[in-house]
Amino acid sequence: MTTSTSSRTDLYVEVLQFYARQMQLLDGGAFEAYAETFTEDGEFRHTPGRPAAVTRPGIVRDLHEFNRRFDNDPVVRRHWFNMIDLNPTDDGMIESTFYTLVVTVRPGARPDIAPSCTVHDLLSRQNGTLLVRSRRVEHDQLFTQPG
Amino acid sequence: MTTSTSSRTDLYVEVLQFYARQMQLLDGGAFEAYAETFTEDGEFRHTPGRPAAVTRPGIVRDLHEFNRRFDNDPVVRRHWFNMIDLNPTDDGMIESTFYTLVVTVRPGARPDIAPSCTVHDLLSRQNGTLLVRSRRVEHDQLFTQPG
Amino acid sequence: MTTSTSSRTDLYVEVLQFYARQMQLLDGGAFEAYAETFTEDGEFRHTPGRPAAVTRPGIVRDLHEFNRRFDNDPVVRRHWFNMIDLNPTDDGMIESTFYTLVVTVRPGARPDIAPSCTVHDLLSRQNGTLLVRSRRVEHDQLFTQPG
Repeated sequence: MTTSTSSRTDLYVEVLQFYARQMQLLDGGAFEAYAETFTEDGEFRHTPGRPAAVTRPGIVRDLHEFNRRFDNDPVVRRHWFNMIDLNPTDDGMIESTFYTLVVTVRPGARPDIAPSCTVHDLLSRQNGTLLVRSRRVEHDQLFTQPG
Repeated sequence: MTTSTSSRTDLYVEVLQFYARQMQLLDGGAFEAYAETFTEDGEFRHTPGRPAAVTRPGIVRDLHEFNRRFDNDPVVRRHWFNMIDLNPTDDGMIESTFYTLVVTVRPGARPDIAPSCTVHDLLSRQNGTLLVRSRRVEHDQLFTQPG
Repeated sequence: MTTSTSSRTDLYVEVLQFYARQMQLLDGGAFEAYAETFTEDGEFRHTPGRPAAVTRPGIVRDLHEFNRRFDNDPVVRRHWFNMIDLNPTDDGMIESTFYTLVVTVRPGARPDIAPSCTVHDLLSRQNGTLLVRSRRVEHDQLFTQPG
């Protein structure tokens, strides 16, 4: 195995572990800790038609505002990521494109599994730590155009 | 890459492979082989309000009893694990926290995808082999409390 | 860590990355590029009762024919693979057995998540590149026999 293979292996697994911890933080309501997984100037575009949240404080504010809809809704949400395709860029960043499903659990109801999205991340390493430079969530629903 | 990074990479992938084989055994009805993926004194707490099954023979007995409900139910079940967060502990074990969905397939019906759970494993290596020391399954449904 | 452990780690991650790219190609309608992830003499058996598509041109033809059903159906499909169990064979190939769900998104509707399948791949390395020698998709529905 070349160093290059090992490095790619290490990176892929680091991203799996990073996403697991990151999304367990988000699903657990730890918005500040979630925002810290972005770069200082990070961008997070999670909903079509809604402007990107920018900077860590901006992301925290946006998440508090977005999650107000669940204030009287006793909900548990779980973000599932899968089929992660990593592509290092020429300038040392990593493009990550993957599928997402959101599992929503409410009292006495079956889990609701929606929406289905494709996420485009740009990841950056700063002082050895992997961070999200930008995250853009595309809802598959928007791409269902009459043929 | 440091040895430490390589070791963490190897461990993460070993856990992915371990879970895949372990749950394909369980879903295939190989309860004895599933129980052997636990330590001799292993604990398995899979359903809220039901006491933990302990030791390998105890886990086998519990699975036979629990699965009696499917005796006249021609069902296929698939356990999906995802978003695996690994944390080595000071005493050489590994905490693993991850999301689970159970896919249930019945004749002529759409797959039923429920429940959504969060699983807390404590993994231990014995003679080079990864084993589950304890597994506790938390049903997300129980955490949907009125706000 | 032995070389053997590293190699197995590298292989497992290579398969994860390979499947992610391969299925994003298929879901994106890039049938020619998908067919190129098979060996020249590759076999693809995706639907019970339908003969295997063989060779890359045969797979492309089969996919165009199979997907004609979506011509007037503005659909987005996402293939999810999970619980991947890899077993190297004595003759240098790799058996891969894993779970699959297909997420289907249509305008104004909830995502439909079906069918649930188990896939049996035989993977082969040619000139350093991982390829599918054969893929057989088993629908879990067919295994729900009255008990």
